[in-house]
Amino acid sequence: MQIGMVGLGRMGAGLVRRLMRDGHSCVVYDVNPDAVAALVADGATGADSYADLAGKLEGPRTVWIMVPAGEITESTVTSVAEHLSAGDAIIDGGNSYYRDDIRRAAELGAKGIHYLDVGTSGGVYGLERGFCLMLGGDAGAVTRLAPLWRTISPGVETAPRTPGRTGDIAPEEEGWLHCGPAGAGHFVKMVHNGIEYGAMAAYAEGLNILANANEGLRTRAQDAETAPLDHPEFYSYEIDIPAVTEVWRRGSVVASWLLDLTAAALVESPQLEEFSGRVSDSGEGRWTAIAAIEEGVPAPVLTAALYQRFSSRGNATYGDKVLSAMRKQFGGHHEKKD
Amino acid sequence: MQIGMVGLGRMGAGLVRRLMRDGHSCVVYDVNPDAVAALVADGATGADSYADLAGKLEGPRTVWIMVPAGEITESTVTSVAEHLSAGDAIIDGGNSYYRDDIRRAAELGAKGIHYLDVGTSGGVYGLERGFCLMLGGDAGAVTRLAPLWRTISPGVETAPRTPGRTGDIAPEEEGWLHCGPAGAGHFVKMVHNGIEYGAMAAYAEGLNILANANEGLRTRAQDAETAPLDHPEFYSYEIDIPAVTEVWRRGSVVASWLLDLTAAALVESPQLEEFSGRVSDSGEGRWTAIAAIEEGVPAPVLTAALYQRFSSRGNATYGDKVLSAMRKQFGGHHEKKD
Amino acid sequence: MQIGMVGLGRMGAGLVRRLMRDGHSCVVYDVNPDAVAALVADGATGADSYADLAGKLEGPRTVWIMVPAGEITESTVTSVAEHLSAGDAIIDGGNSYYRDDIRRAAELGAKGIHYLDVGTSGGVYGLERGFCLMLGGDAGAVTRLAPLWRTISPGVETAPRTPGRTGDIAPEEEGWLHCGPAGAGHFVKMVHNGIEYGAMAAYAEGLNILANANEGLRTRAQDAETAPLDHPEFYSYEIDIPAVTEVWRRGSVVASWLLDLTAAALVESPQLEEFSGRVSDSGEGRWTAIAAIEEGVPAPVLTAALYQRFSSRGNATYGDKVLSAMRKQFGGHHEKKD
Amino acid sequence: MQIGMVGLGRMGAGLVRRLMRDGHSCVVYDVNPDAVAALVADGATGADSYADLAGKLEGPRTVWIMVPAGEITESTVTSVAEHLSAGDAIIDGGNSYYRDDIRRAAELGAKGIHYLDVGTSGGVYGLERGFCLMLGGDAGAVTRLAPLWRTISPGVETAPRTPGRTGDIAPEEEGWLHCGPAGAGHFVKMVHNGIEYGAMAAYAEGLNILANANEGLRTRAQDAETAPLDHPEFYSYEIDIPAVTEVWRRGSVVASWLLDLTAAALVESPQLEEFSGRVSDSGEGRWTAIAAIEEGVPAPVLTAALYQRFSSRGNATYGDKVLSAMRKQFGGHHEKKD
Repeated sequence: MQIGMVGLGRMGAGLVRRLMRDGHSCVVYDVNPDAVAALVADGATGADSYADLAGKLEGPRTVWIMVPAGEITESTVTSVAEHLSAGDAIIDGGNSYYRDDIRRAAELGAKGIHYLDVGTSGGVYGLERGFCLMLGGDAGAVTRLAPLWRTISPGVETAPRTPGRTGDIAPEEEGWLHCGPAGAGHFVKMVHNGIEYGAMAAYAEGLNILANANEGLRTRAQDAETAPLDHPEFYSYEIDIPAVTEVWRRGSVVASWLLDLTAAALVESPQLEEFSGRVSDSGEGRWTAIAAIEEGVPAPVLTAALYQRFSSRGNATYGDKVLSAMRKQFGGHHEKKD
Repeated sequence: MQIGMVGLGRMGAGLVRRLMRDGHSCVVYDVNPDAVAALVADGATGADSYADLAGKLEGPRTVWIMVPAGEITESTVTSVAEHLSAGDAIIDGGNSYYRDDIRRAAELGAKGIHYLDVGTSGGVYGLERGFCLMLGGDAGAVTRLAPLWRTISPGVETAPRTPGRTGDIAPEEEGWLHCGPAGAGHFVKMVHNGIEYGAMAAYAEGLNILANANEGLRTRAQDAETAPLDHPEFYSYEIDIPAVTEVWRRGSVVASWLLDLTAAALVESPQLEEFSGRVSDSGEGRWTAIAAIEEGVPAPVLTAALYQRFSSRGNATYGDKVLSAMRKQFGGHHEKKD
Repeated sequence: MQIGMVGLGRMGAGLVRRLMRDGHSCVVYDVNPDAVAALVADGATGADSYADLAGKLEGPRTVWIMVPAGEITESTVTSVAEHLSAGDAIIDGGNSYYRDDIRRAAELGAKGIHYLDVGTSGGVYGLERGFCLMLGGDAGAVTRLAPLWRTISPGVETAPRTPGRTGDIAPEEEGWLHCGPAGAGHFVKMVHNGIEYGAMAAYAEGLNILANANEGLRTRAQDAETAPLDHPEFYSYEIDIPAVTEVWRRGSVVASWLLDLTAAALVESPQLEEFSGRVSDSGEGRWTAIAAIEEGVPAPVLTAALYQRFSSRGNATYGDKVLSAMRKQFGGHHEKKD
Repeated sequence: MQIGMVGLGRMGAGLVRRLMRDGHSCVVYDVNPDAVAALVADGATGADSYADLAGKLEGPRTVWIMVPAGEITESTVTSVAEHLSAGDAIIDGGNSYYRDDIRRAAELGAKGIHYLDVGTSGGVYGLERGFCLMLGGDAGAVTRLAPLWRTISPGVETAPRTPGRTGDIAPEEEGWLHCGPAGAGHFVKMVHNGIEYGAMAAYAEGLNILANANEGLRTRAQDAETAPLDHPEFYSYEIDIPAVTEVWRRGSVVASWLLDLTAAALVESPQLEEFSGRVSDSGEGRWTAIAAIEEGVPAPVLTAALYQRFSSRGNATYGDKVLSAMRKQFGGHHEKKD
């Protein structure tokens, strides 16, 4: 198939290469002409404006937008749409808020343009491993573009078939799924990222407990401001954390791709000394927690993971000062300095 | 009545003064002779050793031990007991772990000595307001010493009677309660402190949300590492936190003594700038969470409050570094510096 | 002053009576004519339509709307506003979402009508104790209506003055506070209720731990699906929960109005057998958690309290089934029926 | 090598078969003679008592004990040890509390018997996939028994080598690791299971949010006891949960063995209707949370996962009743029935 790609960063360029490798033809555009040139050198057709891009695509056109989330996506979708016609399709492959998808799909639908929201997981490894695709929007457009999804997704052979599944291979077994109408793709991707936060935190907390299994070997203040450690002899282990993450990769219940990455990170940097521990969050975790709250569904684990990221950046400090101030008031406690 | 007091710090000295003011006679001992002298000047009988203390008390003797928790309590109880006889009573008024009470009561009971564990709440205000007393141990000893509890506790007039209570005033309406056999007093005090952690955190978190109600007025990075704030106009309030804590003191559902103290702290220091936000925990919160876990009872609020204190002291950092390292692996994310 | 009141339920009627008792004159309207008649009997002027209400008020008019939150507030504000003119004021005293206040204030402001959002705490006790008032909107209108706030709020004498406060009595010491522009009153009330959820949960969890302090006395299955209780002797207390809540009311750090109410509830019903434990949440707790998330502020305690309410209503069940299904897959575990 | 196996349940029998398949010789014992006979039929040597077992092993003997955790392990270790001599080794492959290992290792060490604690992960799939082994105890004994660990663990070829690892294959790359002195194996296994709880809960919560993405399509009560859903149009998705778990298996960041199992469970039972959602916990999750608390390390995610299991079994109910009782007191709220 022929596809236009707007936004040629790491993810966008990776998609173009994966598409061309599989025989699709790509017309590419980016505000940075060097990014365009690099892909033209590899066989893509370059465009120097949205109008040029639209003109180089045959109808019905398909334009994939892969730009950082937020305002840039909004303005890019609007600009691209000005050059498209009824029957064409715009794909938003970024991490948009699904509520924006619902609105955009309605606006573009009024002009006959299909808007598909595509949640894309795979990170920097996606070019090689394939991307997991969660699609929302018009079923007809999703079906028409199946060759694209097949190229981009990892393919059925990348994991053993789930026991109990028989017969024809379903799209979800190839790594792509039409999740529902507009916004459903990004909704499922949002929850996916929420789960990711929770699972990451599970490993992080567990490794922290292992890293402090030597608590009983340390000198400990003996004062009313320090909780006693009743049995120091139970905390006298010096655990080799990189080795533990490695041993869990084979045969254990917690084996996962996240664990593989953790083991790799700890080979690179056994003490993690180049990290300060300020953990960013980029939106999906927040939206997942908000969805849980609005649905009335408890999500204590996912939300605790999100809050720990907030705390890691110092955002709890005002509240913590309030606590210290209270303790001083009722108990005459003075803050310990370390 | 006559009572011996061992440990004349802020709490112990306060108890002695409250007891003497009500006509009881006190024999007092502390490793620091100045502390003894100060109370002798106010009418107490001084002792310069445990033997001396025991010798100056008439049987059946009652010795109240009020020393910082931990090993010091253990050795003090043992030393005092060497000078007592069957029928005498030892009171541990500190924040001992109730499991130690169970053991000590059994050991001393073998010699006929009563051991009472007394959870004492009231902080630095107790001398003036009276202490809330939670008692564990032998019922006979508790009853015999009722005059002590009556003097130390705040008294029924310090709060309106609970609707529905009629007839004679129960001990709990005076501010003291026999909670059960050995350890029950400190068990109830432990849970009391666990609740205190949770309630304190509820205020602290709420005030932190108010303090950040101006988030939409701040400049915000626009990059893939910063979650977008979709509606900055919803976060454009500059809330006067000290005034809010004051207004809630009258008529609101969250009025409490802790709120009174918070309001007082914020009058003293509206910006809390002398606090860094490193919040200590002194044992009871941990024990409460452990009790919940061993009982199989969910305590998400009390435990979250405890964990936030751990985080405030930097104890989450290793786990946070693991998260940053994972994010770098799968997404090529680099830690933001602020 | 003269004031119009729309919505004569428990809260609205209570406000009218408190206002009239203090010499204000009230014109009252409700969709239920009986509610109007009851207050007319007590001295109010009745109205049978919004037009009638507006006609019976002298300019600048003040109309207080006290209806259940949600769509009804929206339509009532709109209907009332149709009968008002520039310079008049509408007060929303319900539990509206502060975001709706921002919008309404802008809409009404365009016509010169002042819109004040008033968070009101005090529950069913407010008529007697006074209501704590958190106000948002135009400062001029707030000041003009100070006599109303003074009547409705509890008054400075209802609590001892906070140490460190000197000079003139501030409005917040009387129990009312202008928190900021439109929405600020309901924002502060929202966070107030979030704190209330957290504090309530702190007591509930603590009492649950006390209620299960007899876990070691119960027979316990010995199988691979039941966690062992290593030391049953540490959990052999039968705690008198109503007595504990009573004893904490005097002198303890956790004394509060919520505790007073808990003690009263347990006198009425020591076993709480008429409750099933399905705990509603009415919106403010959700909005508080969402505000925390959007601000990037950790609120683990407030959110855990909210989620526990969701769980209490069975909303975790699908997730729990997923867990049971996973355990069956990897460990062959079958659900225990107990 | 030659090894004795005590306890021939699913795990013990699987180990024996895996060992014999690789050329080791096994002497087997179980209180159930049928279990012995079944393995004898497959080539094992049967024993009808501990004495018989010990007699049929050549020194230095190695006896692996694989019985359900708790008291049975304790008594079995004691009984087996009576028939062993200095230089022999006992392996505890169950889920013992690591504190018991520390004690047992000291007791047996006094007689010259080595005690190794072996945390074993792999569940019912271990016979086929191999078990992940976490070992604690004397380094010499661990080294001497390396042929056993190599047979039982999955082997290096079962996962791609971690990038950055070079040179000889480390034991942890084969799937076994000497974690430290007595107890270290079960300590690491305990934390492994804690992580497992957290990761499981992350998936469960996420899927629950997806399952309720249709909340806006349901009829909703409009009353003061029901939180409003401001934008039902944002919750109008009917998500195919089994398909979502399948699509995430390929290329996504949350791919894992737990996800594979979840997908398999949902093929077997798309509605999970045979599960009630009462989720057991068998000890390790509790111990992990207790270790975090005693170390002073925050573990909000792991603990929230544990508490949700407690809640799923109804253990929050007393606290929930307290909340309903409070709400009735201050707000006159009556519990909703569904």
